[in-house]
Amino acid sequence: MVRVGIFGATGYTGYELVNILLRHPQAEIVFTTSESSAGGKLSDIFPCPWDFPLIGLADAPLDQVDVVFLCLPHGASMDAVRQVRSAGIRAIDLSADFRLSDAAAYRRWYGHEHTAPELLNEAVYGLPELHRGAIRDAGLVANPGCYPTSIILGLYPLVRAGALADHQVIADSKSGVSGAGRKPSLTTHFVEAHDNFSPYNIGHTHRHIAEMEQELSLARGNGSGLYVIFSPHLLPVNRGIVSTMYPRLAPGWTIEQVRGLYEEAYSDEPFIHLLRAGQVATLRHTVNTNRVAIALTPVDGSDTLIVTSSLDNLIKGASGQAVQNMNLMFGLDEKMGLM
Amino acid sequence: MVRVGIFGATGYTGYELVNILLRHPQAEIVFTTSESSAGGKLSDIFPCPWDFPLIGLADAPLDQVDVVFLCLPHGASMDAVRQVRSAGIRAIDLSADFRLSDAAAYRRWYGHEHTAPELLNEAVYGLPELHRGAIRDAGLVANPGCYPTSIILGLYPLVRAGALADHQVIADSKSGVSGAGRKPSLTTHFVEAHDNFSPYNIGHTHRHIAEMEQELSLARGNGSGLYVIFSPHLLPVNRGIVSTMYPRLAPGWTIEQVRGLYEEAYSDEPFIHLLRAGQVATLRHTVNTNRVAIALTPVDGSDTLIVTSSLDNLIKGASGQAVQNMNLMFGLDEKMGLM
Amino acid sequence: MVRVGIFGATGYTGYELVNILLRHPQAEIVFTTSESSAGGKLSDIFPCPWDFPLIGLADAPLDQVDVVFLCLPHGASMDAVRQVRSAGIRAIDLSADFRLSDAAAYRRWYGHEHTAPELLNEAVYGLPELHRGAIRDAGLVANPGCYPTSIILGLYPLVRAGALADHQVIADSKSGVSGAGRKPSLTTHFVEAHDNFSPYNIGHTHRHIAEMEQELSLARGNGSGLYVIFSPHLLPVNRGIVSTMYPRLAPGWTIEQVRGLYEEAYSDEPFIHLLRAGQVATLRHTVNTNRVAIALTPVDGSDTLIVTSSLDNLIKGASGQAVQNMNLMFGLDEKMGLM
Amino acid sequence: MVRVGIFGATGYTGYELVNILLRHPQAEIVFTTSESSAGGKLSDIFPCPWDFPLIGLADAPLDQVDVVFLCLPHGASMDAVRQVRSAGIRAIDLSADFRLSDAAAYRRWYGHEHTAPELLNEAVYGLPELHRGAIRDAGLVANPGCYPTSIILGLYPLVRAGALADHQVIADSKSGVSGAGRKPSLTTHFVEAHDNFSPYNIGHTHRHIAEMEQELSLARGNGSGLYVIFSPHLLPVNRGIVSTMYPRLAPGWTIEQVRGLYEEAYSDEPFIHLLRAGQVATLRHTVNTNRVAIALTPVDGSDTLIVTSSLDNLIKGASGQAVQNMNLMFGLDEKMGLM
Repeated sequence: MVRVGIFGATGYTGYELVNILLRHPQAEIVFTTSESSAGGKLSDIFPCPWDFPLIGLADAPLDQVDVVFLCLPHGASMDAVRQVRSAGIRAIDLSADFRLSDAAAYRRWYGHEHTAPELLNEAVYGLPELHRGAIRDAGLVANPGCYPTSIILGLYPLVRAGALADHQVIADSKSGVSGAGRKPSLTTHFVEAHDNFSPYNIGHTHRHIAEMEQELSLARGNGSGLYVIFSPHLLPVNRGIVSTMYPRLAPGWTIEQVRGLYEEAYSDEPFIHLLRAGQVATLRHTVNTNRVAIALTPVDGSDTLIVTSSLDNLIKGASGQAVQNMNLMFGLDEKMGLM
Repeated sequence: MVRVGIFGATGYTGYELVNILLRHPQAEIVFTTSESSAGGKLSDIFPCPWDFPLIGLADAPLDQVDVVFLCLPHGASMDAVRQVRSAGIRAIDLSADFRLSDAAAYRRWYGHEHTAPELLNEAVYGLPELHRGAIRDAGLVANPGCYPTSIILGLYPLVRAGALADHQVIADSKSGVSGAGRKPSLTTHFVEAHDNFSPYNIGHTHRHIAEMEQELSLARGNGSGLYVIFSPHLLPVNRGIVSTMYPRLAPGWTIEQVRGLYEEAYSDEPFIHLLRAGQVATLRHTVNTNRVAIALTPVDGSDTLIVTSSLDNLIKGASGQAVQNMNLMFGLDEKMGLM
Repeated sequence: MVRVGIFGATGYTGYELVNILLRHPQAEIVFTTSESSAGGKLSDIFPCPWDFPLIGLADAPLDQVDVVFLCLPHGASMDAVRQVRSAGIRAIDLSADFRLSDAAAYRRWYGHEHTAPELLNEAVYGLPELHRGAIRDAGLVANPGCYPTSIILGLYPLVRAGALADHQVIADSKSGVSGAGRKPSLTTHFVEAHDNFSPYNIGHTHRHIAEMEQELSLARGNGSGLYVIFSPHLLPVNRGIVSTMYPRLAPGWTIEQVRGLYEEAYSDEPFIHLLRAGQVATLRHTVNTNRVAIALTPVDGSDTLIVTSSLDNLIKGASGQAVQNMNLMFGLDEKMGLM
Repeated sequence: MVRVGIFGATGYTGYELVNILLRHPQAEIVFTTSESSAGGKLSDIFPCPWDFPLIGLADAPLDQVDVVFLCLPHGASMDAVRQVRSAGIRAIDLSADFRLSDAAAYRRWYGHEHTAPELLNEAVYGLPELHRGAIRDAGLVANPGCYPTSIILGLYPLVRAGALADHQVIADSKSGVSGAGRKPSLTTHFVEAHDNFSPYNIGHTHRHIAEMEQELSLARGNGSGLYVIFSPHLLPVNRGIVSTMYPRLAPGWTIEQVRGLYEEAYSDEPFIHLLRAGQVATLRHTVNTNRVAIALTPVDGSDTLIVTSSLDNLIKGASGQAVQNMNLMFGLDEKMGLM
């Protein structure tokens, strides 16, 4: 039985994590923290029958757990991770704070200094399909962002094989509103988001680009980097991301060969659902699951390939992937609690 | 040409009013105020091409208008109405501040003193179907609440005729989220309201009950009053209210006679759509219009009649009805700008 | 391991059942039928990775299963149940065909003869909270309707205790669109149902009334029957029912006593979430779970009590309750596969 | 007063047209046809109070109208247009049948022969921003498709100026469900489309590509053509299209110069809302209006420009644009009935 602590249980990823872990046969939730609701119970905050006490982060009994999941805002997670690691406890951080291996890149994209740069070296980017081995041994896993998971997995087989014609690739993504968190704002006010559809932070400005380019450039491996033009859009649903990607293929690559790259990369992956020719990835393929659906659509008369991918931003894009990482770290069946 | 000022143009009712008045052939918007956005333009706040300057309420040139619409929160409207009336300008108040004729009832339901009780006498409850004559001559019109419009109009012919068996009546209402205004909150956060449906303030607690009971007791006319059990529910749509009402008929009333009461009351009303036998009122009957749809459904084997009504809470439930009142006050065709 | 067959796997209840049973540690799906898609696979019909073959009902290997779930339309289920029972296999019927113990009532409400009346005697109404003991031994369980589950459980403690003042009770229910099934129609066309809200079959006409009145009259036990005025409304969400009920209390009953009745009836029930005073039941309490949430709200100044209940129409209102019944029938933990 | 006939009033574009024309001060609806509902009234089909009789197309009194709007499916419109033109009546065809000037292209994209090729010469592509002069004199206007309106207007200033680096351009579009029409299908079933988001017909397969390429190649003017990679997606809203386009700029073009091209092309256009730098086009900018909103977003570090556009597919994408064309054809103010 893995004894689990959760830092930040009253955001959407924290609550999703509680729901997943309650169904997990080998995990036990020892404590749940909330700075804003310390002293209350989870059932005060969410419409659920679970009366977990919410405690302050400072009161968390770290000595009683094997792993801490951190569902804190970026910026706030750095010091909390250090506290966990100093106590010798393994950490799975769902924030962005340890996803970039380079503290300078972190400062450039997030606009403030990294206050625990000494931990960046030991952090493993927690995308099992790319880094399964390193995750198993990691003390600190940086759980990937939701958009990056959908885009990295959508392009990885192509990039790794050097099948791209171009150093730039367009990714047009559409995400449900829970991706913006639980804090009310005008953008996420029901009346504003319902029956609406809005591009936001399009071009080369969204912070998740840093992770995508880091991991895809690493996969590309020739030192030349990959430039992602990324257009996120706010979709009037609660959950899920569909990314529509437009890589251009290097001369000579046929759709059959490309399909072979994806099959080779993913046919044994328990959470990747590679769709058949003629299919496209929709939200319905993956919402409420830990799966990523990926489909390949050739464009007649063009060197452009359209890759569509979908996932649930709170599960494979956050808390489900975090539990998948926990399973790997503790030698459990990778799928446990996630089917 | 009626020269119009709008106090509070950056809430949903204010913006709806601007949209209606821009289509009105005999109205001209002279100024629009916003305390939070004074100095900006309407197109900074809403996704529209209209560059009306937003000014502070204190800077409003009252001498250049014939009427002021007040789209302010209850409580804030009382003093602003006094200011308008002191300048000799007619006022249409969309808040609740002048709907109750009794200052004590106002204090009881709204929890604070009425600070302009001397104006209560001249205020006319702006429901044209009940008070058309008085509205024509009014200096101050108290524009009805959205729920009360749907419920008063749904029950008025029955109540006026003394056709109720009981002094209490159940009204189960469902409203879109714009009824809760534009200020973000957890209740109206997209992720919380979408795919959800919630009763709230049910029983005998919602403030709109005061208006319903005032107007229906007045219509009943025998001094005994009517008690409304009112259950509002939050519906995951932007606009519209459906009310399902369960009056019990006094012995002897047939459905044909009851239908006759509604036809007599409403057949000449330009904005009441009395549905045929077998039909029910749905949101789609009225959203984006100034209409109220009303349907009567007898219950086999029971003295209960089901009345369903629907309206758009921002139009017939607020800004459209306000313009209807303006048309009456200025001798224009009541339907002008509203079809 | 319980070996399971599913008749009618390509409707929404059939697909939900597959999803639940795949997570059930003691169930194994042996076959899935579909008349319209026989010869295909489940993954042709739904966006899922499960390649179960779909076979014709006539080809189902009944000798290889312990229980058959029937997810067929009412009318079509009668003969199929007879076939299953003739083979000596236990049956859980999700249609309405065996819910009414009286064949004459079935004909009256459903408009056609019951063709397997000899099986009505052995059928048990599968609401565990009322009939747990009988379900354990049943050869044939008639799985309750979604609306009846929400209303019977909402009123049962009151009715059983004789706490109602009146023989009639009003239930105003709101249901997501999946309750109408998977067959396209204009009513369930996206453009018609989205941003809409519609009463339908209101009064004393909806077929589910027969079950409600049968079970509540039985609970009332004094032979006088209970008359349910039932107003279903179509809600623009996929899943979930909220019922708002307006029983009038007999003289002398206090809210504390009434709350005691519910606690007595439900405090040990694993799937009933009795909400605290001041709370109301919302969709979010129960969607995607097998729970029913129930809340009691007294009405100041009236003998009316407002009971709100919510459930997921495809889970506790259909396939989850069916698996709960299976667990009881086979001596498993009642909660298995359902948490 | 322009006397109007409508062929096909019971689809969504026909009903929208009725709604617009009822507000138009210089139009009078003389007849409305419906093959499926002939003999009934419009209020039998839609939740509205308008009792227009629905007649069969063969019974339409063509001699009593000045113009006929054809809201028929493609394929069905060809012969009906010939009938109207033979009677000497002007026609505005909302189907795709006369949008392509080349009968061979029509056959290639639509899969059947054009049966009225002799009328293709006189047909004018009804996009006022490109063909205002020709529309004024046209006997037959081919009203553009919804997607093409959003994409042609989004790219036209760039293409006309020769500012594209490439002969291919990517357009990723998202459309509400009313674009799929009123006929129920599994794709447009509420439960399937709600909370879902689906790419469909992506690549170079959607029929609307033919119009886009025809008009943009014409605007490009150098005979080399433009290739549009077009990815439509189904969005869970009723109305509206957002297109996100990714043209690559030829060397030397700055964002200021490009913005100048759009201002030059559109600053006098009454229905084009060119957004300010920093803004993006959202559904909310245009739904329920006849406007197109267009925004330009440069991509730091890339030659790619992101153009976002939005419109209401039933108004500027269909019936509103049709009325705009009628206004031009009959010498009325182009904006009449459309503000």
